[in-house]
Amino acid sequence: MSDEEYTPTARTTPTRSRERVGYDRRAVHAVLDEATTCHVGFVVAGRPVVLPQLHVRVGEDLYLHGSTGARALRSADGQGLEVCVTVTLVDGLVLARSAFHHSVNYRSVVAQGRAELVTDPAEKTTALAALVDAVVPGRSAATRGPDRRELAATAVLRLRLHEVSLKVRSGPPVDDPEDLVLPHWAGVLPLSTRRGRPVPAPDVAAGTRLPGHVQAWVSGGTTTEERPSG
Amino acid sequence: MSDEEYTPTARTTPTRSRERVGYDRRAVHAVLDEATTCHVGFVVAGRPVVLPQLHVRVGEDLYLHGSTGARALRSADGQGLEVCVTVTLVDGLVLARSAFHHSVNYRSVVAQGRAELVTDPAEKTTALAALVDAVVPGRSAATRGPDRRELAATAVLRLRLHEVSLKVRSGPPVDDPEDLVLPHWAGVLPLSTRRGRPVPAPDVAAGTRLPGHVQAWVSGGTTTEERPSG
Repeated sequence: MSDEEYTPTARTTPTRSRERVGYDRRAVHAVLDEATTCHVGFVVAGRPVVLPQLHVRVGEDLYLHGSTGARALRSADGQGLEVCVTVTLVDGLVLARSAFHHSVNYRSVVAQGRAELVTDPAEKTTALAALVDAVVPGRSAATRGPDRRELAATAVLRLRLHEVSLKVRSGPPVDDPEDLVLPHWAGVLPLSTRRGRPVPAPDVAAGTRLPGHVQAWVSGGTTTEERPSG
Repeated sequence: MSDEEYTPTARTTPTRSRERVGYDRRAVHAVLDEATTCHVGFVVAGRPVVLPQLHVRVGEDLYLHGSTGARALRSADGQGLEVCVTVTLVDGLVLARSAFHHSVNYRSVVAQGRAELVTDPAEKTTALAALVDAVVPGRSAATRGPDRRELAATAVLRLRLHEVSLKVRSGPPVDDPEDLVLPHWAGVLPLSTRRGRPVPAPDVAAGTRLPGHVQAWVSGGTTTEERPSG
């Protein structure tokens, strides 16, 4: 185990499909950075709650935008809140000849630990800008930053990346040898995220040019085909 | 409150953004049916665990494919397992003139309750076929179904849809009136799921025709552009 990997713990050591699990920091970072949203789990009155959230990684810190689930997240003030942050990118549907070997190609990071409420105003300001830039790179410089009231109204949690694992399934289906004679088609149906054509807000003056950071976002995707928004 | 809506409970009644939360059964079903994967949260030794899973809705039952997290899921045998199943579809990034009003357009269902391990072989067989058909409609009839050993090796959980809520954000950014004079572009960057061109398994004979259910899956998407798979 080197600094290039997270150290496995009892909770991050799988009991099955061991070959799919890894701890490589760079691979973990890549998944966290590609995804815009995560699912944050925490325990309320002994029961699980899972909510979608925005996140951004800054070095080995994962910041979570806490406007959703604010009640539980604010209760993190002081002692911290045990969370499980899971980020999943679905890359494809895996169709095997047997129903049993159907699967999904995916990359999923699970990060566990005690998240802390960010209270330092400077760190909070930096984290919020990073969260905006995680949505669209370069965006935070092209907005009005938060004022004191907005800063106070926003909760940001910080989870140190320490107890972390990555699970990956990729490649074609793996059928049992005796099933290869069956007539069923087998293969992978790829899935990815499509970036659509930007839809200006109704109160943006007609003919306003798209700013560079939005143009870059569009060309970072693999198509600009339009679909209806929201 | 009618049969057309889930009855709100203390856990599904929001403390903020109430206008975004609903209980309409048909709207909940539509989100569950559109998504292939969900995130299942449960509690292990007092701490939260969140794992991605395949799911399928059959009427008012949500079935979860339990191969991941099998240890905890199998412990559900008998008394059931408290879960929170969250399904999130991200429809777009919402860019406002102020950093504070940046948001995401999404539809998210949260279903809570006690999941039961499916033990009846007939129900399990039906649920597994439904799970395969949720991946690609019509697929289960074009595979070899599970044998007794495979059935035994697969865990399926059933969560009755009872304590359920839907949260939706859609439409353009909502800026503060005094920010409308700012020069920043504002609008929505649409996101959707792209279905790529099917990649046959290496052991499928060259020239094998795509079966109808795979062709239908492809044309159900809005493009067939290819990208590298998993």
